[in-house]
Amino acid sequence: MNNHTSVPVGVLGASGYVGQELLRLLARHPGASVAFATAASAAGELLDGQRLIKIDDAPLATAEIVLSCLPHGVSARYVHETRAAGRRAVDLSADFRLSAEAVYGLTEVARPRVATAELVANPGCYPTAALLALIPLAQRALIDTSREVVIDAASGVTGAGRNPKRELLFGEVAEDFRAYAVGNEHRHLPELRATLAREAGFTGDLVFTPHLLPVKRGILETIHVPLTRVLDQATAEGLYQAAYAGEPCVLITAGALPSLQDVVYRNRVAIGVAPVHNVRRPRLTVIAAIDNLVKGAAGQAIQNMNLMLGFEETTGLVC
Amino acid sequence: MNNHTSVPVGVLGASGYVGQELLRLLARHPGASVAFATAASAAGELLDGQRLIKIDDAPLATAEIVLSCLPHGVSARYVHETRAAGRRAVDLSADFRLSAEAVYGLTEVARPRVATAELVANPGCYPTAALLALIPLAQRALIDTSREVVIDAASGVTGAGRNPKRELLFGEVAEDFRAYAVGNEHRHLPELRATLAREAGFTGDLVFTPHLLPVKRGILETIHVPLTRVLDQATAEGLYQAAYAGEPCVLITAGALPSLQDVVYRNRVAIGVAPVHNVRRPRLTVIAAIDNLVKGAAGQAIQNMNLMLGFEETTGLVC
Amino acid sequence: MNNHTSVPVGVLGASGYVGQELLRLLARHPGASVAFATAASAAGELLDGQRLIKIDDAPLATAEIVLSCLPHGVSARYVHETRAAGRRAVDLSADFRLSAEAVYGLTEVARPRVATAELVANPGCYPTAALLALIPLAQRALIDTSREVVIDAASGVTGAGRNPKRELLFGEVAEDFRAYAVGNEHRHLPELRATLAREAGFTGDLVFTPHLLPVKRGILETIHVPLTRVLDQATAEGLYQAAYAGEPCVLITAGALPSLQDVVYRNRVAIGVAPVHNVRRPRLTVIAAIDNLVKGAAGQAIQNMNLMLGFEETTGLVC
Amino acid sequence: MNNHTSVPVGVLGASGYVGQELLRLLARHPGASVAFATAASAAGELLDGQRLIKIDDAPLATAEIVLSCLPHGVSARYVHETRAAGRRAVDLSADFRLSAEAVYGLTEVARPRVATAELVANPGCYPTAALLALIPLAQRALIDTSREVVIDAASGVTGAGRNPKRELLFGEVAEDFRAYAVGNEHRHLPELRATLAREAGFTGDLVFTPHLLPVKRGILETIHVPLTRVLDQATAEGLYQAAYAGEPCVLITAGALPSLQDVVYRNRVAIGVAPVHNVRRPRLTVIAAIDNLVKGAAGQAIQNMNLMLGFEETTGLVC
Repeated sequence: MNNHTSVPVGVLGASGYVGQELLRLLARHPGASVAFATAASAAGELLDGQRLIKIDDAPLATAEIVLSCLPHGVSARYVHETRAAGRRAVDLSADFRLSAEAVYGLTEVARPRVATAELVANPGCYPTAALLALIPLAQRALIDTSREVVIDAASGVTGAGRNPKRELLFGEVAEDFRAYAVGNEHRHLPELRATLAREAGFTGDLVFTPHLLPVKRGILETIHVPLTRVLDQATAEGLYQAAYAGEPCVLITAGALPSLQDVVYRNRVAIGVAPVHNVRRPRLTVIAAIDNLVKGAAGQAIQNMNLMLGFEETTGLVC
Repeated sequence: MNNHTSVPVGVLGASGYVGQELLRLLARHPGASVAFATAASAAGELLDGQRLIKIDDAPLATAEIVLSCLPHGVSARYVHETRAAGRRAVDLSADFRLSAEAVYGLTEVARPRVATAELVANPGCYPTAALLALIPLAQRALIDTSREVVIDAASGVTGAGRNPKRELLFGEVAEDFRAYAVGNEHRHLPELRATLAREAGFTGDLVFTPHLLPVKRGILETIHVPLTRVLDQATAEGLYQAAYAGEPCVLITAGALPSLQDVVYRNRVAIGVAPVHNVRRPRLTVIAAIDNLVKGAAGQAIQNMNLMLGFEETTGLVC
Repeated sequence: MNNHTSVPVGVLGASGYVGQELLRLLARHPGASVAFATAASAAGELLDGQRLIKIDDAPLATAEIVLSCLPHGVSARYVHETRAAGRRAVDLSADFRLSAEAVYGLTEVARPRVATAELVANPGCYPTAALLALIPLAQRALIDTSREVVIDAASGVTGAGRNPKRELLFGEVAEDFRAYAVGNEHRHLPELRATLAREAGFTGDLVFTPHLLPVKRGILETIHVPLTRVLDQATAEGLYQAAYAGEPCVLITAGALPSLQDVVYRNRVAIGVAPVHNVRRPRLTVIAAIDNLVKGAAGQAIQNMNLMLGFEETTGLVC
Repeated sequence: MNNHTSVPVGVLGASGYVGQELLRLLARHPGASVAFATAASAAGELLDGQRLIKIDDAPLATAEIVLSCLPHGVSARYVHETRAAGRRAVDLSADFRLSAEAVYGLTEVARPRVATAELVANPGCYPTAALLALIPLAQRALIDTSREVVIDAASGVTGAGRNPKRELLFGEVAEDFRAYAVGNEHRHLPELRATLAREAGFTGDLVFTPHLLPVKRGILETIHVPLTRVLDQATAEGLYQAAYAGEPCVLITAGALPSLQDVVYRNRVAIGVAPVHNVRRPRLTVIAAIDNLVKGAAGQAIQNMNLMLGFEETTGLVC
């Protein structure tokens, strides 16, 4: 890596799990270098060869692009400062995901808009998997909106952040499994609904139930889709193959269903389908898996950054 | 424990996870003692103080009751031999669960029939949790059968047995999570449907999707129920409290939702509910948790055995 | 359980992992009942059927005996108040382990003294396993004190307590393994040395290195003992069998070595031995395993309490 | 990657954990491409884009170099066939590690010999970490050979291979921890002793005790070294820093001790030291960590292959 010709990238909030992953990925990116990386209590520490600084010392304008992993509610301020300094940004918080200020960066769906965006709102981890699984069906009007789409999602613990909380201790999480935000209470639901409406005209009902898995990373979503007509295995797979033909970061697991093993440490969504037997009306079960820290966060941010900077889309990523 | 006044119990297939759990529980049962315990390749070994013998050496008639943990397809033969020897039996395999020969031993639902049964078919692990969660709603005709009930179930690895298979190795299961038998292909579905029809008159559609969790024991089921009318939190909880009033092995987690922690190593089902917001039609999400080896297998078998022998129902069990 | 004839027991500090385990064990104890249980931030919550109260509201004198799981440094004050109220106490903190005020409650070694003690200092988890493994060799002068005894110990995460700390998060501990307090820096070392000197006259050098295991509970210690003379497998096993003949809570795993599986959820130490080949001078490797929450803390406290109250020693315990 | 100018590499035994890791690493190697990859029962399957073939169909001569992950005892035959076909080989089995036919490929120690070797015996996983930790001390005659060096090593489960065995099931390994081959019975000991003698003239006694950790990958070794003279922290660290100055795949963790987190998915050994206090004679505890599948197997094989083929040593690797 030739640093003097590489693009300087600023990272805000580098000491959480997503920020760490971003530094890890940037360290391997042949065309980018970290201009600065900020942290709060960890300022002063060395992380992946990078000395962390306080955010208010961050020389925002020295970066060509700033990637923010700051917490929701905090990120917007520094993203606005970045923009005021004339720099582009990818915001990994939820602050701009429902805002017209930013392009919603679900790469496979918004590629041309991302490439020219000044500000990209990187999608939430759960929505990334659900949207890539549902959009092809919704765009073809195959979802029966008289019945609800039920999404059961399970995430590894890094999705809950790195701040110490009792319920995230190893002694609590290991050998346990729990649902949370049950009853459509999760903050990712509005993002999911808004994007399905905007990108696919889908306004049907969703029931979204996240669960906490005793694994470090990975999200698996089991998506129960009522259909307007029967889709057999081959047709359903063919539909996804066609929808994502040529996509480097989408794997359709024909004849099999994905699990976390297929996606961890990769910037990939893996999608598999199974028609449902022994029911009166047509249904398809779709399984979608991602690494919450990669395609669900830092990896997709790099994917978007690559588009914005004119790099080949998967530069520095393993898909 | 005074062995010379205790009831002799025979255990068939004691070296698998369920058989081990049965021996562990029987060792603490104040009124029962193990007359014999059989194993195939592990015959001759000592397990929880018990010397395992070959099944064809088992003196069936020396037991007052025989508990069979033999594999499906094998168990029926030895249960029939037990019955021919004039002894009562609890069969933990699937061999009699759909048969008129046996009483289906979901204890809370079939208590009087179990007490007098000569042969009890112990329910499957997944059906135990799902049935105890669904029967109160189904009996009250609260389930809207124009929409499907969706059950996403996740089980610890001991539910898959103790025979060495590559997909059950630690190196494969740890940090992974996968769905299996997707599309209503699991053999527990007919048991579930038949019991719901028989006990609650429910004939609506179910979508049942099991998942393999990287934990040793425990099942959590997230059950999505379309309702015929709105149930708020208090009403739904009240309904379950009433349905299971006085039940020693059912915990309704009011104002909270159960997780595996609440049930492992206990002969208990824990049930919690959450009404679903942001959908057009009424729905309830029910979370049910059990220990697959205890209430889902060995514990419920002891619970049934206690009834059959006239012991207090929870003797030797922690609920 | 007949509460009006049962002995009232007070529990101080019931919301940590040890306190929880104590309540769990007391709930199953046929001769004891919980008079009160205290907690700090969790006061007001219900735990295993027990409403937690603030410590300064604890009616110490209503208990016949008080078991304290308070933190080191805090416990002494309330134990002294308990004593001032005329009540006996078992202190599970480190506050009295090196003090002449208390009997050091390594049950198997100090049984008669424990029975009549007013105040018992319950041993640390690591010392419990190490002492029970080393005392039989040290008492027989079999340890070559010209060479160091090396103890590598690995503990499950509950040994580090339930206060939220980043380094104990699931995201940090899972798939990791680390040594800590390396270089003889662990606070259990003085307890270990003092007890070996007092109970066995051993004053040789020890090197004690604890490790953090990605499991919830259990301690395994691999103890490397330089010997004054060769001990073959049978002789070494026989020596331990003799030393612990009749002990209900000690298992010598002849012809095998113990692992955590043999001890979790049990009030047992399991000890196995292997002579070391391919070295010039005689050595024995001793493996000792306990459940850090049971024989390493709450279980041994109950064992001691049973002796103090005149119950059969293993009442309410599974050994 | 430009396949027509890349070096064709053959992989024997690609379906085990090491073989899989090798394919994963080769897929990212910019100068090498997989000419063929063999498997036994998995022949015909697709792995990381590679169709597995039966070993007897492998066109050995089409590869420039062959990497063998075949089992011990089987590998030698095919390595000999490879050599007979005029091709170079890296053997990852134990078959040549004690043989004069091969260069023992501990890269940092044998770099020039590896570069020109026709056949490299890739070191065992445990010896890799232990040797890199001990050689600097042994070469400087700092180890007191009148006392034994005690090595307690703990490995993730992938180190035990991918063949289904009951003791490697998730249900057995999770929440467990065990020692094995206790008493200096492990087959890596002769390799360790022979290499220490050859490379550092060390002929003192070793006590090596491996343990099975409930993690997927990673080895941590806690190495207890009796010293001929006192080494304080700074001196000991300085010694290692000097010994490995400029080494891209060795990390000396000054002022800290390594854990598995520091090394997994990396071709790195991390080494930290701590002088031992409270003992009469000088001792140093050395902690060494590697990823058993990377620096302990497939990664070091690539590192050696790079040297043999004239690539920059870390090409395709993350150190």
